[in-house]
Amino acid sequence: MIDFPGFGFEILTQDTSSRARHGRLTTPHGTIETPAFIFCATKATVKAAIPRDLKEHDVDVILANTYHLMLQPGANLVERMGGLHKFMGWEGPMLTDSGGYQIFSLGHGSVAEEVKGSRQADRPSLLVDISEEGATFRSYIDGSQHTLSPESSIEIQRKLGADLVVVLDECTPFHVDREYTARSLELTHRWSNRSLAEFRRGANGQQALYGVLQGGVFEDLRREAADFVMTQPFFGHAIGGCLGVDSVQMLEVVSFTMGYLDTDRPVHLLGIGGVRDIWTAVKLGIDTFDCVSPTRIARHGWALARKDSPRNRLNLRNARFRDDAGPLENECSCHTCCNFSRAYIHHLFKADEMLGIQLVTLHNIAFMTGLMKTIRDALVQGRLAEAERAWFEDTVNS
Amino acid sequence: MIDFPGFGFEILTQDTSSRARHGRLTTPHGTIETPAFIFCATKATVKAAIPRDLKEHDVDVILANTYHLMLQPGANLVERMGGLHKFMGWEGPMLTDSGGYQIFSLGHGSVAEEVKGSRQADRPSLLVDISEEGATFRSYIDGSQHTLSPESSIEIQRKLGADLVVVLDECTPFHVDREYTARSLELTHRWSNRSLAEFRRGANGQQALYGVLQGGVFEDLRREAADFVMTQPFFGHAIGGCLGVDSVQMLEVVSFTMGYLDTDRPVHLLGIGGVRDIWTAVKLGIDTFDCVSPTRIARHGWALARKDSPRNRLNLRNARFRDDAGPLENECSCHTCCNFSRAYIHHLFKADEMLGIQLVTLHNIAFMTGLMKTIRDALVQGRLAEAERAWFEDTVNS
Repeated sequence: MIDFPGFGFEILTQDTSSRARHGRLTTPHGTIETPAFIFCATKATVKAAIPRDLKEHDVDVILANTYHLMLQPGANLVERMGGLHKFMGWEGPMLTDSGGYQIFSLGHGSVAEEVKGSRQADRPSLLVDISEEGATFRSYIDGSQHTLSPESSIEIQRKLGADLVVVLDECTPFHVDREYTARSLELTHRWSNRSLAEFRRGANGQQALYGVLQGGVFEDLRREAADFVMTQPFFGHAIGGCLGVDSVQMLEVVSFTMGYLDTDRPVHLLGIGGVRDIWTAVKLGIDTFDCVSPTRIARHGWALARKDSPRNRLNLRNARFRDDAGPLENECSCHTCCNFSRAYIHHLFKADEMLGIQLVTLHNIAFMTGLMKTIRDALVQGRLAEAERAWFEDTVNS
Repeated sequence: MIDFPGFGFEILTQDTSSRARHGRLTTPHGTIETPAFIFCATKATVKAAIPRDLKEHDVDVILANTYHLMLQPGANLVERMGGLHKFMGWEGPMLTDSGGYQIFSLGHGSVAEEVKGSRQADRPSLLVDISEEGATFRSYIDGSQHTLSPESSIEIQRKLGADLVVVLDECTPFHVDREYTARSLELTHRWSNRSLAEFRRGANGQQALYGVLQGGVFEDLRREAADFVMTQPFFGHAIGGCLGVDSVQMLEVVSFTMGYLDTDRPVHLLGIGGVRDIWTAVKLGIDTFDCVSPTRIARHGWALARKDSPRNRLNLRNARFRDDAGPLENECSCHTCCNFSRAYIHHLFKADEMLGIQLVTLHNIAFMTGLMKTIRDALVQGRLAEAERAWFEDTVNS
């Protein structure tokens, strides 16, 4: 076993009619009430948000990307600057991924691109080679060649200094068959063992390690992945890789995978953050989520909203908001909704003013932290099903 | 005379060795301690800054542009939304210009462009016609044709609802001769009288009107302008138009112009905001300044700083800041300097992250409000000359 002295995961309330649970995840930089949403700070910034504004809007934990940061500004520089927390002015809990997802999605294209057929054929792959040793790829910034191994991923993550770190895995794309996925899973498990060994070697008591479950959409492989991670002394489990073509298949894969997993460790679902998906995945036992979507759509003028929109989002560029004096959401108490109208934000986007992005980003962050609080409160009160129904009835009736 | 009941200008301290004075300008939305810098909120936002962050960094007063706002989102919409203060969430004093400057600089090119020869020859002029009635121009957004008259400028500014408003003037370019400038000055004065009449007609006690002094670089014309505005019941004077090819000529023009002006009303110097220019112009009796520069240069990665730079600015993209763990300025207490390093901000700009712009914007705002406070404190203490010397000695010695 590995000791994670400054870390803990306590289940405070277990739902009686599903695997959903309300928990508390302790790290050296503070606690995370779960279920929780982890906001993406890809390049050491939650895009367009000042850290104090994140705190004010109840953000507990953020996620930075090893892949981006190893290339720019580099892990050694971040280490010299006192680690990522100090570098970016974020004092709370933080997770870094292994870098694998970006390397492989840059090579294969993302699942979404594959499914939609939207990947540009003329975009050169940046993935050079996958070998037993690791993955070799070219920098998206300057084309320089880099190799990421399980050991170097852990070493980079140690230098970055996030509380929660993740083993290097091969993230399989959607188009590959069972045979490739099975072979890849074995590779991921060998890499996981090497990641664990490197983690042990350099353990400083400030980090806890998550294993990753791969296996694509294949139930037997996901079971194999679950069996593997459960035998290993990871602090938590992260479900990654290809989860299918759509939300239905994704939740099916998560469902059978969760069925094979123990319930004592925190489980993170990598890259998923749709509102409906979160409600469902919480009931499957997922504790934490991450997704770039809330901040990414904000930059395109989309505000998350329960009402007025079946897709849970309003396009603020739409002319119907031109003279709408109301806030983004009537019930919202975020800084944006307390001080600015839809008409003003519409104007900011039409005039290409950055402030529009800043204000919608704050709202979308508040929307997500509010959603997770609604879920946690419902769990504490033993009324998760009613809370879910009420959430979507509100949406439909408006 | 016109009564401006909610307004006032009180000179609290008069410097004994120059025309510099410390004053208090009262408006219905609060007071402005002068000398003061007015931050540009061109399209109803100080670019990249949330209003509460402006307040936190001691911003007293902002300036919005009639030209931009009449085109987008339109004065009627702003009026329906409760006026500019409410629309943009700014509760403090505000000034709007007349729209003239932008129309004429879009027609003639700006003075800086003329002097530098940097204006692109193939950029079509948006100025269609100047007549006795007003200026006809095409929208920079959609090419639609608009006419701005003295009356419509005042009407638009009434709908916008700023505390301080300005008469429409013809803003002459650098290349025109004395004869054109003289004829133009007469037009500006006829427009000023019409602006005054329209202001009187719709006066609601919530606004105070500034006259504008034109006359280019010609001393006799500036004297004529001063004689004109002093006979009119303007609340304040604004010095506008072409002020010469460089800082030396600008200050010469301001100097002889101020020599002809009475000292009882507040005087605004339009569009000037360089640090050295402010120190000098304060001694010539200027009370308020405005300039887009502090926020514009922030967007290009330039931080205002007293030390390390003869030009009072640091280029944060420069590689020398890559591993500089210090703040932008050691002495600065702005949110950025208290929480983030030059290395982090360098990274944000290299990575094209908006947060870099946001953080440098806050610093540059704090730099300017700090500069003005240094000047006011020195005036109160009767040591303006020493304070100026100390400011620049610090710069040189660093």
